[in-house]
Amino acid sequence: MSESVSMGDYKSTTSNILKGQLKWAGDLTFQGRTQRGYELDFDGKVEWGCAPTEALLLSLAGCMAIDVVSILQKQRVELESFKVDISGERNPAPPQYFTSIHIILRLAGKDIDRKKVDRAIELSQEKYCSVRHTLRPDIEITIEAVIGKE
Amino acid sequence: MSESVSMGDYKSTTSNILKGQLKWAGDLTFQGRTQRGYELDFDGKVEWGCAPTEALLLSLAGCMAIDVVSILQKQRVELESFKVDISGERNPAPPQYFTSIHIILRLAGKDIDRKKVDRAIELSQEKYCSVRHTLRPDIEITIEAVIGKE
Repeated sequence: MSESVSMGDYKSTTSNILKGQLKWAGDLTFQGRTQRGYELDFDGKVEWGCAPTEALLLSLAGCMAIDVVSILQKQRVELESFKVDISGERNPAPPQYFTSIHIILRLAGKDIDRKKVDRAIELSQEKYCSVRHTLRPDIEITIEAVIGKE
Repeated sequence: MSESVSMGDYKSTTSNILKGQLKWAGDLTFQGRTQRGYELDFDGKVEWGCAPTEALLLSLAGCMAIDVVSILQKQRVELESFKVDISGERNPAPPQYFTSIHIILRLAGKDIDRKKVDRAIELSQEKYCSVRHTLRPDIEITIEAVIGKE
């Protein structure tokens, strides 16, 4: 596999400049919108929508998941299911940034090769994951892959 | 205004451990879910849902917006509208992390005091914003406040 070619198609669909908008909807609620119109709702009290830190955590899971699935698909690995559990611990006092994040990838499919999975995770972490590389480098991020039945 | 008391209510509603889940939905699409059940959909090709980097950008806008509105509300500033435009530039080659982010806050209301707005932004950036402090410190983040009619 040529690493640069393997991610070329996916990576080339994303622009270098990204834009978004937020509109206050009363109290501590905000309606967010990506430049393509996808809506994401925030609530400081988390009675509605999500907390910004929850969206951040899911964005890391999403970025790594897209990388890993993309790499495995290029290698013709036949996935039947793929799930991610992510949890993050935050500094107890403000600023409540994430100090550690644990990710569990749960893959099922036909004859999934652990080496390919581990290599895909490594490539995402070290080379491709835009979200991971936008985060502070001192966050302790651990990733575990569980291969088996759904 | 006591700074720690002013954000106490909002900050105490968020837990130190946050969890989320993702489920692959074919191709490069994933359905995300916060621990409270809010759904966030990702698509590596951005034909559906959003890109993880877009969600990350909005999470920063949301976190700062919640801080600023929360601080201004505690100071009895009467906001009529509040909008945020955010744009981020990414490294052109992988990893395509954000190198700079520009945020424009657009506030309208009765006799809004620029000093209070500037101080609220400063407090968010330096002390409260969980998302900003989870990002790498070398990202150049500029914030502009526009006070006026909607």
